[in-house]
Amino acid sequence: MNGNRFGRLFQVTTYGESHGDAMGVTVSGCPAGLELDEDDVQAELDRRKPGQSMITTSRGEPDAVSINSGVQDGYTTGTPIGMVIENKDARSGKYEPYVTAPRPSHGDFTYSAKFGTRNWGGGGRSSARETVNWVAAGAVAKKILETRDVRVKAHVNQIGDVEAPEVGFEQMLEHTEENPVRCADPETAEEMRELIDEYQEAGDSIGGSIYFEIRGVPRGLGAPRFDSVPSRLGQAMMSIPATTAFEFGLGREAREWTGKNRNEDWEFSSDGDPIPEGNKHGGLQGGITTGQPIYGEITWHAPTSIPKKQQTVDWETGEEKEIQVVGRHDPVLPPRAVPVVEAMLNLTILDFMLLGGRINPDRLDDDPGEYDTDYHPSSPDNE
Amino acid sequence: MNGNRFGRLFQVTTYGESHGDAMGVTVSGCPAGLELDEDDVQAELDRRKPGQSMITTSRGEPDAVSINSGVQDGYTTGTPIGMVIENKDARSGKYEPYVTAPRPSHGDFTYSAKFGTRNWGGGGRSSARETVNWVAAGAVAKKILETRDVRVKAHVNQIGDVEAPEVGFEQMLEHTEENPVRCADPETAEEMRELIDEYQEAGDSIGGSIYFEIRGVPRGLGAPRFDSVPSRLGQAMMSIPATTAFEFGLGREAREWTGKNRNEDWEFSSDGDPIPEGNKHGGLQGGITTGQPIYGEITWHAPTSIPKKQQTVDWETGEEKEIQVVGRHDPVLPPRAVPVVEAMLNLTILDFMLLGGRINPDRLDDDPGEYDTDYHPSSPDNE
Amino acid sequence: MNGNRFGRLFQVTTYGESHGDAMGVTVSGCPAGLELDEDDVQAELDRRKPGQSMITTSRGEPDAVSINSGVQDGYTTGTPIGMVIENKDARSGKYEPYVTAPRPSHGDFTYSAKFGTRNWGGGGRSSARETVNWVAAGAVAKKILETRDVRVKAHVNQIGDVEAPEVGFEQMLEHTEENPVRCADPETAEEMRELIDEYQEAGDSIGGSIYFEIRGVPRGLGAPRFDSVPSRLGQAMMSIPATTAFEFGLGREAREWTGKNRNEDWEFSSDGDPIPEGNKHGGLQGGITTGQPIYGEITWHAPTSIPKKQQTVDWETGEEKEIQVVGRHDPVLPPRAVPVVEAMLNLTILDFMLLGGRINPDRLDDDPGEYDTDYHPSSPDNE
Amino acid sequence: MNGNRFGRLFQVTTYGESHGDAMGVTVSGCPAGLELDEDDVQAELDRRKPGQSMITTSRGEPDAVSINSGVQDGYTTGTPIGMVIENKDARSGKYEPYVTAPRPSHGDFTYSAKFGTRNWGGGGRSSARETVNWVAAGAVAKKILETRDVRVKAHVNQIGDVEAPEVGFEQMLEHTEENPVRCADPETAEEMRELIDEYQEAGDSIGGSIYFEIRGVPRGLGAPRFDSVPSRLGQAMMSIPATTAFEFGLGREAREWTGKNRNEDWEFSSDGDPIPEGNKHGGLQGGITTGQPIYGEITWHAPTSIPKKQQTVDWETGEEKEIQVVGRHDPVLPPRAVPVVEAMLNLTILDFMLLGGRINPDRLDDDPGEYDTDYHPSSPDNE
Repeated sequence: MNGNRFGRLFQVTTYGESHGDAMGVTVSGCPAGLELDEDDVQAELDRRKPGQSMITTSRGEPDAVSINSGVQDGYTTGTPIGMVIENKDARSGKYEPYVTAPRPSHGDFTYSAKFGTRNWGGGGRSSARETVNWVAAGAVAKKILETRDVRVKAHVNQIGDVEAPEVGFEQMLEHTEENPVRCADPETAEEMRELIDEYQEAGDSIGGSIYFEIRGVPRGLGAPRFDSVPSRLGQAMMSIPATTAFEFGLGREAREWTGKNRNEDWEFSSDGDPIPEGNKHGGLQGGITTGQPIYGEITWHAPTSIPKKQQTVDWETGEEKEIQVVGRHDPVLPPRAVPVVEAMLNLTILDFMLLGGRINPDRLDDDPGEYDTDYHPSSPDNE
Repeated sequence: MNGNRFGRLFQVTTYGESHGDAMGVTVSGCPAGLELDEDDVQAELDRRKPGQSMITTSRGEPDAVSINSGVQDGYTTGTPIGMVIENKDARSGKYEPYVTAPRPSHGDFTYSAKFGTRNWGGGGRSSARETVNWVAAGAVAKKILETRDVRVKAHVNQIGDVEAPEVGFEQMLEHTEENPVRCADPETAEEMRELIDEYQEAGDSIGGSIYFEIRGVPRGLGAPRFDSVPSRLGQAMMSIPATTAFEFGLGREAREWTGKNRNEDWEFSSDGDPIPEGNKHGGLQGGITTGQPIYGEITWHAPTSIPKKQQTVDWETGEEKEIQVVGRHDPVLPPRAVPVVEAMLNLTILDFMLLGGRINPDRLDDDPGEYDTDYHPSSPDNE
Repeated sequence: MNGNRFGRLFQVTTYGESHGDAMGVTVSGCPAGLELDEDDVQAELDRRKPGQSMITTSRGEPDAVSINSGVQDGYTTGTPIGMVIENKDARSGKYEPYVTAPRPSHGDFTYSAKFGTRNWGGGGRSSARETVNWVAAGAVAKKILETRDVRVKAHVNQIGDVEAPEVGFEQMLEHTEENPVRCADPETAEEMRELIDEYQEAGDSIGGSIYFEIRGVPRGLGAPRFDSVPSRLGQAMMSIPATTAFEFGLGREAREWTGKNRNEDWEFSSDGDPIPEGNKHGGLQGGITTGQPIYGEITWHAPTSIPKKQQTVDWETGEEKEIQVVGRHDPVLPPRAVPVVEAMLNLTILDFMLLGGRINPDRLDDDPGEYDTDYHPSSPDNE
Repeated sequence: MNGNRFGRLFQVTTYGESHGDAMGVTVSGCPAGLELDEDDVQAELDRRKPGQSMITTSRGEPDAVSINSGVQDGYTTGTPIGMVIENKDARSGKYEPYVTAPRPSHGDFTYSAKFGTRNWGGGGRSSARETVNWVAAGAVAKKILETRDVRVKAHVNQIGDVEAPEVGFEQMLEHTEENPVRCADPETAEEMRELIDEYQEAGDSIGGSIYFEIRGVPRGLGAPRFDSVPSRLGQAMMSIPATTAFEFGLGREAREWTGKNRNEDWEFSSDGDPIPEGNKHGGLQGGITTGQPIYGEITWHAPTSIPKKQQTVDWETGEEKEIQVVGRHDPVLPPRAVPVVEAMLNLTILDFMLLGGRINPDRLDDDPGEYDTDYHPSSPDNE
């Protein structure tokens, strides 16, 4: 409603501005009995962290997470998990010139139009810094999904006009994190890197895209019509800052396919279950999972923070003026967005599994009649 | 949650199956004082109605709407508007062969996987017949938006490989409804029509896309992060049956644009307000409206109901079998989806205007201190 | 949000005014596989129906329900159940004098203050006629709860100063429906009846209360803090028109009890489970069910429609005037509210059972891996 | 849904356990432009703080709040306000004996029944310590309501059988905070204090109640039927730990009043508006505010933590055993619950004012067309 919440049963609530004291996220609805500690979350945050390479902003944030609640003796308790990540390297002074003169193509003007005020430090709430919260929450979701063998992976499949060849899921798992571009094809990664460097040196930035795949999702998930899997993925992916397109299955190209070519006959799997003969449908039919991998693509426009001098206007003084965005910024977004995409996919899929009864919303153990169990004994004897 | 609700303050709840007794939609949150009668709704339903031309299904539904509540003496009362559209021409018998043998690429199997049952008549709840409810609700939203000069229009911009040239908003308003393809460029419409006929004669079907534009939206609408305008449009558009891609602004092509080329300087409008020099941003920055037109594209895959013989399996008998989908079906989806897209856009934008305080959620008149007014006097004297 | 929806997973949406065309309710989230037909719903509606005896309004409504969707071949499909109940005996003319002169202690003025309009026919949306929707939805919930041996019963335990003695659950089941007052103690019922007659003859009305009990609720239901069982029951019961108090367990009297007297030791049940030695806690500890019966009381003020001449003011003319409420009205509310209370209790408890994973939200059968089953074969062969 | 959220537009999300690291609350939906700092929140927290007198627990919590986001240069920005209150004086060791043996009449068993685990430290999430979050959020709501002259006040009107006489609103404002019992009648406060001392010395505890009143609420607030003001107050009040009854207006006594005696004629106010001649209706008719003060009562049972030896059973060992609850606990709940009740009332009423359009959800300033204003200039020049 106010935009700071995601998820129906696995509920994520966030706060924080780029240059405020801290970012924070509350995860309500995590089943009890999950083994979880700060390292699990930190590992994902480290993947998103700024300053990892030359192609990311040099802002020096350790992004250290504190879990304030919801975990006892190393296991979740079923009550909300409150997490805080302090902002250590905010340098708001750099943004002073733009207080009443919006930066070109940023959210400066629109946030002021909405709130009638100006949260000027580093973009305030509109900053992509917010996604640190999503990655923290997604880390919890990921751990639960791992217990059900659901796996999510994304990689950068295009930067500018450099496009990666099709890669397999195992290849994505193996190679994506090996290079700063996060492209699972090492040769393309190298080309992408060169292209990015070129734009960065020219004081410019460039767009790109991410391909994702989700494996192991059980059939029968999704709540058509308005909460179908495509609907919720659409919402989730278009929530990511600077995205301009979401596609699944054949995506945009589907417009040129005929029914005969796209339709897939049903056959029996080795288990005797009906399965489609292919997966041009992208794992989703009628908005519900078929059990086949869900895959798709998301597009990012080029970062709007570029060192080039640009024109703006000052709404206080009524003057036109030249602006030069300083600060520390990424020349391209998808490489750092890979863990963000994965986080949002994990959150979305887990929510469907809780809704669909695949996971007991109260606890990982499926028997709702038990009032205690052995495998997560939150007792002093365990310490 | 269960997928049958859309909207936060302008709340739409729907029910109905393709071959059930009736479709129904409840609109809760319509402000009081709107002039509304069944003709307003019927006009939109007639645009979506089957059997309008050779390229749509010949199912003979009058789609006559009854308003059961929420309107008194020709004005809305602020209480929920219940609408019912009876199903008159359901012929379930035709679907008997597929009861336990799913049709290729339909939602038959996935719905059964979700619910553990088989709603076999005409696709049941998975049918696009559901969108009659959305168009009815959207008609109410449209009437409210008209009072605020917000205008929504969509047209078919591509069928197969036949692509329309760029068209202006006024051209869309003028020409879209003139041809059965609903393409605002008459020449392209003709070409599209020929292509569709070709596929239909070949017992095949074809994909396509719709371009939309929203004009007059005030700046400052949207609730980032998870309820930003792109997020909610993403959810709304991907809820439409058979869609596989949602794009706004530069969409998928943004991946190849540089920051220098995409960024837009700020200048002063004639009113002295900051406005961007162009609209490559698609009316949205930081997920919030700039006041510029919002535009984008949605892709549909080809209809899955084709007369070709296809292979399927029967999960009761364990046998493979041949299937031939009879029934009455569209050879292409976008032409009839135009009013559906417009309805969902109207619903989404209105919801933001109610949330953002642009429209008083209780009444169209903005003064919350009044307990009665003259301009919608629901009294017997007025009859 | 707009007040026309109840429930989180078992979602009820309603519409309708006292003198509109029809009342309607959509039940979204009913699991598939429940045997259900219109008779199941009608049986409950008949219990609430006006004109059952001298102590209820003589409005002649058959309250015949039509199920428009969500049921196929006698079983629910898991998709939304749309129900419509037509208004047959609305006589708005009687209300004309009060169009701009509010009736004393009704919702006439406040509805106008909210909506800036005047839905003058029989109280419009503020009428208790709305509860026909709740009873219809509750009938569906009741059928599901019966499959889990959860039983809800209410009876009138006080009218004016006539108070019933404590009665057992079986006595409530056996005797409540035997008399028009719906008091499970036949002698008290007689006294209540006399008291009501007395007030009715005097052109007056009187308040009263209902005692309820819920048996068979599993332990561990409830979502503290804001969705605890007491919170949700509080919301549900205070939604019922004309209620002024909700109590559970010791209720209002708890203020005079000491901890020593109220606390209950734990002992082992015959099954070896911990159970409290008594049930002064009313089945709820820390907002969650203990497995003991949940019980409580709700109070209604006297009906505000009385034939006495009263004073009001006309906000159009600015004149004071005398008013005499004609129309057909109940001299006391609890007798007809018994099925309403039961309905809301059924809806509330079922929602918790769906949330807590006791019932699979998609289907009654608990195995989420199956895509079809035998016991609710929605196929043409079954007809 | 999971119970950790309250409010529709003014959204409160909480986390924290009695003996965890910190309590936390996120307030999403606070309009921009409100002057706010930590002192505003701290002032309310100090009223609720433990250890204020002999009749409250001696747990030594400073309850110091940190605002992590949502405030810039002393004004709210419209983005979520994240607040954290560290737990400094948790002593879980004291609770070791009860890990698998539930304390009588606490939430120990029911929480374990729900989550299948045992959050044993000090009651974990079931502890009333959670209400520190509510008071923090309520402090923000209170500041907004003050800008609209809406005032909320509560006082303890009964402890055991000691009942306060009726007091006026100004008396409540003046005297409530003068004594540790928080009764606005000084003499009764003294009597209550003696009674409490007596029970405390006897190793016992006692129940009590709170009377509240809300002044200045505009007419026309409330969203019948399920989100009427009584419904939402019912939910809010029954969410407070250990409450067993909620009443408004004549409350439970309404059952003995006749319609003639309770009905209130309409007359004209000095402003020429219709007003009821009295306020037996408690400020609410048809679930919507009349503009008259809203008042009611809430009952608490006696604290369940008493030093008396009690019987329990150990579900691990299967043994019956004696238990003696140590720890630091209140002998009576209402005195410390006064700020909690006020907080929940402020949150509830503010939410209705945002929903009803009385306050722009985006900003305190009502003009939605402005993109900046002078009175809350979040700019460096202002520092």
